Amino acid sequence: MPYGDFLKRLAAAAAAETLPRFRRRGLVDNKLGSGFDPVTEADREAERAIRALILAEHPDHGILGEEHGLHNGDARHVWVIDPIDGTRAFISGLPVWGTLIGLTEDGDATAGAMSQPFTGELFYADETGAHYEGPGGPHPLQTRKGLALVDATLFTTTPALFTEAKRALYDRLEAAVRLPRYGTDCYAFAMLAAGHADIVVEAGLQPYDIVALIPIVEKAGGVITTLDGEPAENGGDVIAAATPRLHEAALELWRKG
Amino acid sequence: MPYGDFLKRLAAAAAAETLPRFRRRGLVDNKLGSGFDPVTEADREAERAIRALILAEHPDHGILGEEHGLHNGDARHVWVIDPIDGTRAFISGLPVWGTLIGLTEDGDATAGAMSQPFTGELFYADETGAHYEGPGGPHPLQTRKGLALVDATLFTTTPALFTEAKRALYDRLEAAVRLPRYGTDCYAFAMLAAGHADIVVEAGLQPYDIVALIPIVEKAGGVITTLDGEPAENGGDVIAAATPRLHEAALELWRKG
Repeated sequence: MPYGDFLKRLAAAAAAETLPRFRRRGLVDNKLGSGFDPVTEADREAERAIRALILAEHPDHGILGEEHGLHNGDARHVWVIDPIDGTRAFISGLPVWGTLIGLTEDGDATAGAMSQPFTGELFYADETGAHYEGPGGPHPLQTRKGLALVDATLFTTTPALFTEAKRALYDRLEAAVRLPRYGTDCYAFAMLAAGHADIVVEAGLQPYDIVALIPIVEKAGGVITTLDGEPAENGGDVIAAATPRLHEAALELWRKG
Repeated sequence: MPYGDFLKRLAAAAAAETLPRFRRRGLVDNKLGSGFDPVTEADREAERAIRALILAEHPDHGILGEEHGLHNGDARHVWVIDPIDGTRAFISGLPVWGTLIGLTEDGDATAGAMSQPFTGELFYADETGAHYEGPGGPHPLQTRKGLALVDATLFTTTPALFTEAKRALYDRLEAAVRLPRYGTDCYAFAMLAAGHADIVVEAGLQPYDIVALIPIVEKAGGVITTLDGEPAENGGDVIAAATPRLHEAALELWRKG
């Protein structure tokens, strides 16, 4: 059975914990004095809610979460969770954070969801393909085709996350595209899958930052690997592109360094 | 009579032109081949809709718009319009662009609105104060108090917009705060007014980029000037801060250059 419906239930359970704590200004103010931290609380409670549903429905599956660690990691199916990807966006009031819920089977990412509950958007993928639900109505996700590197839109959270050597390479990639854009975290990969952006590069990712996004990008027609061209399931420095041709062009530029 | 209701009607008229063209992927694809450009069309049509309402309701008022220029500029009341601030966000699918509608009286910005129709958010100010409407329900806007520079969140669209000399100053400001964040355009000023961000710095603004935001920031308790400490109505390099103390601390750091 496709995992789409289960992913939606997991996303809804997480949203019930994150959304009421988003833009809770008084709480953020207090944090600085008292150590109370709404984003950490939202993170923890959302992951707890997701784990509880997985354990109830799929007790034989494993779980790797940002907040609560690894459970049953040798299972064939392992869920990989970042309850709030983009905590800086979250604490700044910006609706470009997301809840990431991915599933690996024998180490391959096969299903995943990115949920943005403030805008009411869900980007997800399972064995039926990649899908969008939200304002504008449900529709399949499909990457944009036919653009050359010189016409591409490039997203990264911030170039400051690259090490010095890689920063020079990033800068060359940025200079080669039409429109670079910062500050988007997981939302960038969703925009790529939806056909609004062409390349996303991110440095130093953890598995829970990326596993959920891999099937969304791939089933929408994109390519996603590490900067060495390896599978991205283990995180690291990751590049996603709307088409194989763009992916190759960007990696080629990268390798020239 | 307060301008709030009129601002809402103007924002709704603009949204009817912008929102149907947001994320219209096929159109953006076509643009590259045929010269058809949905963001330019949305810009033009939204401004046309706003101007028509102003002319009908306040025929003696002046209008300055990004797309259609100046009308009756010597009037005591002049409306200052940017139908889509953040066109790069718009064409990248990101919901952090906005429609800016400001009113100057004898050159002072006294009322204004920032509308984000995809998220359904309206930030506006008139003689009754500064207000939010959107998800979570209507509430007054109020900046965050009591944070020192070292605890502040700083927004800018991208440091690359600063000239070389100013870039060094910007970098010093960025190093002095807790959390710098890129890529937000007008949405950054709205987040400052709503108490989620503490400082916004932007380089090279036009009057239509900032007039609408001045009353929103000021009536929410913030301070907004040029980097020379002058009124921001004419644009230029602009700094907004959540409190007079933060504004002074940031300008002080700036002046040390």
